[in-house]
Amino acid sequence: MDRNDVTRKIIAAKVRNRMRWADIAEKIGESKEWTTAAMLGQMTLTLKQAEVARELFGLTDEETAWLQIVPYKGSLPTAVPTDPLIYRWYEIVNVYGTTIKELIHEEFGDGIMSAIDFSMDIQREPDPKGDRVNVVLSGKFLPYKTY
Amino acid sequence: MDRNDVTRKIIAAKVRNRMRWADIAEKIGESKEWTTAAMLGQMTLTLKQAEVARELFGLTDEETAWLQIVPYKGSLPTAVPTDPLIYRWYEIVNVYGTTIKELIHEEFGDGIMSAIDFSMDIQREPDPKGDRVNVVLSGKFLPYKTY
Amino acid sequence: MDRNDVTRKIIAAKVRNRMRWADIAEKIGESKEWTTAAMLGQMTLTLKQAEVARELFGLTDEETAWLQIVPYKGSLPTAVPTDPLIYRWYEIVNVYGTTIKELIHEEFGDGIMSAIDFSMDIQREPDPKGDRVNVVLSGKFLPYKTY
Amino acid sequence: MDRNDVTRKIIAAKVRNRMRWADIAEKIGESKEWTTAAMLGQMTLTLKQAEVARELFGLTDEETAWLQIVPYKGSLPTAVPTDPLIYRWYEIVNVYGTTIKELIHEEFGDGIMSAIDFSMDIQREPDPKGDRVNVVLSGKFLPYKTY
Amino acid sequence: MDRNDVTRKIIAAKVRNRMRWADIAEKIGESKEWTTAAMLGQMTLTLKQAEVARELFGLTDEETAWLQIVPYKGSLPTAVPTDPLIYRWYEIVNVYGTTIKELIHEEFGDGIMSAIDFSMDIQREPDPKGDRVNVVLSGKFLPYKTY
Amino acid sequence: MDRNDVTRKIIAAKVRNRMRWADIAEKIGESKEWTTAAMLGQMTLTLKQAEVARELFGLTDEETAWLQIVPYKGSLPTAVPTDPLIYRWYEIVNVYGTTIKELIHEEFGDGIMSAIDFSMDIQREPDPKGDRVNVVLSGKFLPYKTY
Amino acid sequence: MDRNDVTRKIIAAKVRNRMRWADIAEKIGESKEWTTAAMLGQMTLTLKQAEVARELFGLTDEETAWLQIVPYKGSLPTAVPTDPLIYRWYEIVNVYGTTIKELIHEEFGDGIMSAIDFSMDIQREPDPKGDRVNVVLSGKFLPYKTY
Amino acid sequence: MDRNDVTRKIIAAKVRNRMRWADIAEKIGESKEWTTAAMLGQMTLTLKQAEVARELFGLTDEETAWLQIVPYKGSLPTAVPTDPLIYRWYEIVNVYGTTIKELIHEEFGDGIMSAIDFSMDIQREPDPKGDRVNVVLSGKFLPYKTY
Amino acid sequence: MDRNDVTRKIIAAKVRNRMRWADIAEKIGESKEWTTAAMLGQMTLTLKQAEVARELFGLTDEETAWLQIVPYKGSLPTAVPTDPLIYRWYEIVNVYGTTIKELIHEEFGDGIMSAIDFSMDIQREPDPKGDRVNVVLSGKFLPYKTY
Amino acid sequence: MDRNDVTRKIIAAKVRNRMRWADIAEKIGESKEWTTAAMLGQMTLTLKQAEVARELFGLTDEETAWLQIVPYKGSLPTAVPTDPLIYRWYEIVNVYGTTIKELIHEEFGDGIMSAIDFSMDIQREPDPKGDRVNVVLSGKFLPYKTY
Repeated sequence: MDRNDVTRKIIAAKVRNRMRWADIAEKIGESKEWTTAAMLGQMTLTLKQAEVARELFGLTDEETAWLQIVPYKGSLPTAVPTDPLIYRWYEIVNVYGTTIKELIHEEFGDGIMSAIDFSMDIQREPDPKGDRVNVVLSGKFLPYKTY
Repeated sequence: MDRNDVTRKIIAAKVRNRMRWADIAEKIGESKEWTTAAMLGQMTLTLKQAEVARELFGLTDEETAWLQIVPYKGSLPTAVPTDPLIYRWYEIVNVYGTTIKELIHEEFGDGIMSAIDFSMDIQREPDPKGDRVNVVLSGKFLPYKTY
Repeated sequence: MDRNDVTRKIIAAKVRNRMRWADIAEKIGESKEWTTAAMLGQMTLTLKQAEVARELFGLTDEETAWLQIVPYKGSLPTAVPTDPLIYRWYEIVNVYGTTIKELIHEEFGDGIMSAIDFSMDIQREPDPKGDRVNVVLSGKFLPYKTY
Repeated sequence: MDRNDVTRKIIAAKVRNRMRWADIAEKIGESKEWTTAAMLGQMTLTLKQAEVARELFGLTDEETAWLQIVPYKGSLPTAVPTDPLIYRWYEIVNVYGTTIKELIHEEFGDGIMSAIDFSMDIQREPDPKGDRVNVVLSGKFLPYKTY
Repeated sequence: MDRNDVTRKIIAAKVRNRMRWADIAEKIGESKEWTTAAMLGQMTLTLKQAEVARELFGLTDEETAWLQIVPYKGSLPTAVPTDPLIYRWYEIVNVYGTTIKELIHEEFGDGIMSAIDFSMDIQREPDPKGDRVNVVLSGKFLPYKTY
Repeated sequence: MDRNDVTRKIIAAKVRNRMRWADIAEKIGESKEWTTAAMLGQMTLTLKQAEVARELFGLTDEETAWLQIVPYKGSLPTAVPTDPLIYRWYEIVNVYGTTIKELIHEEFGDGIMSAIDFSMDIQREPDPKGDRVNVVLSGKFLPYKTY
Repeated sequence: MDRNDVTRKIIAAKVRNRMRWADIAEKIGESKEWTTAAMLGQMTLTLKQAEVARELFGLTDEETAWLQIVPYKGSLPTAVPTDPLIYRWYEIVNVYGTTIKELIHEEFGDGIMSAIDFSMDIQREPDPKGDRVNVVLSGKFLPYKTY
Repeated sequence: MDRNDVTRKIIAAKVRNRMRWADIAEKIGESKEWTTAAMLGQMTLTLKQAEVARELFGLTDEETAWLQIVPYKGSLPTAVPTDPLIYRWYEIVNVYGTTIKELIHEEFGDGIMSAIDFSMDIQREPDPKGDRVNVVLSGKFLPYKTY
Repeated sequence: MDRNDVTRKIIAAKVRNRMRWADIAEKIGESKEWTTAAMLGQMTLTLKQAEVARELFGLTDEETAWLQIVPYKGSLPTAVPTDPLIYRWYEIVNVYGTTIKELIHEEFGDGIMSAIDFSMDIQREPDPKGDRVNVVLSGKFLPYKTY
Repeated sequence: MDRNDVTRKIIAAKVRNRMRWADIAEKIGESKEWTTAAMLGQMTLTLKQAEVARELFGLTDEETAWLQIVPYKGSLPTAVPTDPLIYRWYEIVNVYGTTIKELIHEEFGDGIMSAIDFSMDIQREPDPKGDRVNVVLSGKFLPYKTY
């Protein structure tokens, strides 16, 4: 058994019981973005969060223990994702990657936007021409320093 | 000569003259995000915008014509980017890809967030623990339909 | 259990019972193109469609639930397909890709032909020199806009 | 000098002179789809067609000779295309590939749709909800035979 | 169960019973080349051929049904084959590929040698300096046409 | 300068002067298959053959010397060829690879068909249903031995 | 069941019983290099050798039959090996590959060193500065010929 | 200018002047194997050796300086070599890789055969059935240790 | 059963029993770095160490035997690691790789830093601005020699 | 012109003038590790540092400007490095990657060791059994947080 087995079990339970990520997140006590990532095997739960998950998905002791272990991260089966929704994000990185780089460097100098000290918020943005997906990404700027 | 040659010439002129993307965008009359992407060879300029670019970067007639032709898009030299700043974005897609997919589907059903009817806004978010990069992505939701 | 397991079960039932996609589509109530894609794990069924599928293929409750969940799309095992019929389509994209790009841009400007707001119709076209496969693809044009 | 050099020269001349593929095709005397593919280095011209191209793009004798030589085909720089318009076609092959295979086999038996005895027609389809790109592909069915 | 399972079962039965492809082909009633390809999961059998296979390899009803379904073709586990015998064929394509292209085009013009309307015959050619493998490939020439 | 430069020069001269491989082969004194492969940079010429090539293509002393040096072989730009004619050969290896392996082993035991002690003959085979390309490959069988 | 299953069973038996390849080879009656390759699924055994293997590893009838079938060769899970010992050999090919090519061609002309009519001998070479691995490779030279 | 430019110049001079590696090695004062690798850009020359090379190949001061700089090693253009002679070596690593690993570990325990403290000797081995290439590889065994 | 199965069992036991690598290392009697690598399937244990592991993780005789066999090394599922922590190390190699090469060569001449005669020490380095990971790598320098 | 051109010019000047990185670093006023990375195109120089570089390497105004622009980082030509010295570092990541991950997580919890707030120190460590390369890596620990 490894974390992937626990993830598969969680997803199957969620499908079977027609649960929603937003509701699960409320019970876990974190944002729906972090909670979903955690349930999909990308984040580490505290003891208390893992106990909630145990209840929600009917996990065993060993499965609950796995949720508290730092996982081997990476949720995609191929380097270039084939799923159209996820591909569009890869395309944004591909088309706008050098633009993002230029503008962050222009504002902050050499360094990166952290993907660790990072949060994400996904919301529906009503629009008469068709609703939009609005995503806010916030990452700490980490400067390269000389030494 | 192709669009890549024009891109290289624009970047070299910008470096030589120590120009800023924000200033260039103001002259082009679009956001700094769109303008930078356009100057880096990813977007198509109108005649008027191309004329501004001609002035700013000292382009020839042929180079100015290239800016008005739809380019072959894709700004990265490798499928997995090696540059740390751009890689962090690829990492976000890799770690959070299935999370983004789940949450957009939970809210909107089957479909995608458009990378075409799309805009991006990158801002500095002051923070006493270290300033943050704040990025807002807005893409129209496009539903899959049965037929 | 995941969607792939349901797809494999559907295909096996179809082989065993020597069913036809056209007949299945009629029962599902959608075109044969959409229905086949859905049965092969690429589309999301409504509750009612899933119930029809349950009947047709002898699915369990959990399997029927999976059909109503948005799947991770992508039906090919390798980036370049090895199957000769599917490869010919990849070859068309490879040989004619830049041509398609030029002609759509010439007619519509910068943007794409949607693969989401999209439909496909495959028909036999009788021809004395050998019947032909006639395929009509229809996708909404989505323009890039400045912002 | 090789065919790629001729292609680059033709594209540059077209950009410089702001020509349209439809007009070029009319002069060459073939469809705009075949003509564009030919000008982009994928098809072989007859002596007469090559002479027209020589006039249109100001080619030398050697360049005109190259147009009459069968080219090494394949117009994309990477196995998975990065350009969003062309990627959507790759995505169609990826998502619908097995569907296309099933339906052609159901109608015709084992074999392929030819990408050689093949034609393509790209048209604007007016639509109040947004115009559509309508593409008709026609390829001869070639059956596998036993021997 | 899918076609690969049937292929594995056929190969295991052949190994266990020490059968020869030439004998199997005689019973199937086709050439040893086509028959072997079919048994290895690359070709589609008629009802009658499938019944012979059922007898020969002790197949179930479902397995026999799979033999009559068009398979997803491609018999190699990697894009560049590692097996020395098969690699030599890949090497011939790699070293002689452009030569084959030039000579077929010189004789026939632009087009391809069909791999569908195709047959192969493999024979031992006695030779005092060491017997040779003699292979005859015959494929219909399919010309590219203008349209 | 290296062998690729000489190959490019030879091809350009052939295109410019509209020569045929068959005629070139006659002057070189070898088969059209070997001669074409040699001119395309895959084989090594003798002093005498190189002198004929010098005459035919107007080569310099250094270029003529390169023809007599064993080249780094491999004529394709990508591991999976994109050109449709050459791809069909790759497809034959992919679809029939395991078949070829089985039949050669059945006849000869463990070993390979040499791609070095090898010859190829490409001929037009007239056929009322459309002429065929007939290719004979002959390679010495080389057995694996125990030691 | 296929040859890989037999290989895994042989390795497991060897580990469990703490056998040595040199002893196994003595019983098989061939060199330790050939025998190890054969036990690892790369070579074909005679009936008599397979019977010895049956005894040594407790194989079934079917497993013993598999040892006498020519296997699909290639023992590495990735194109570039990750195991440090095997990587060093890949590194030798990478660093010295063109050197080996030049020196064999200088001595023998165009052709190859056979990997089929080939033997290998691995020995410990005592050395006061640290013992060395001494490997002798012997392969027949096979010349390319004109035809 | 970099080391690759010097390598190309050396090879071109060798071709033009029809020199032999064995003679060059004698003048450099090292084995033909090391010398060829060095001339092909894989090894670092001493000042004295570089002076000999300057004489032999007519190098400039800067080119001579490059020969004394440690090069970025790796002589092959692709991860899997396409040249038949070099491929056979890759094939040996692929087919015999796990065998070599097993036998070295059986004799020496866990560790590697060095590719740095390493030498190679390539000789012609006369044989009435066809001369053989005999290669002796000698590498220090380096044990993994616990710590 | 192979070494991977043993590794999976060890990890599962460690998760279930919430053990620490540092404690395991103390019992094994080696550093925490070597011990962890060994438990993760990268190193070979002595009989005595394997017996300790048997006790700690409840292994069978056969599993204990596997720990004493040299494993096929390489702990990552993809050539470019997707896990953010491990990727940062790959990034260091990518960004600083040529720097490391230059500085080691400047100090030592041509050669490598051994990854076999190698040790690693990972420590927490307290820092008021945020604790740091401090890693010391020590590898013997191995010089290339002429021969 | 881009940063790669400046890097090539700097390296060529260093080779021609036989300079040492340690001396260059002293003049730039930073560690030899940071300075070498900067000169090899991986870091951004201040105006003052760039002026020193201009003097040292005879750079033009434009070249000096490029040194102050944040570069597209990544110093290796292939995803898996071919150079033996750099490969050994990739091997350490491959063999010890999961070990490093486990031990950092055991000490710090979920998060990463920064490759941005990072420094490296490479020293010769004298050793009677052969001098060693001693490398100290220091990176800030960055924890994943819930949100």
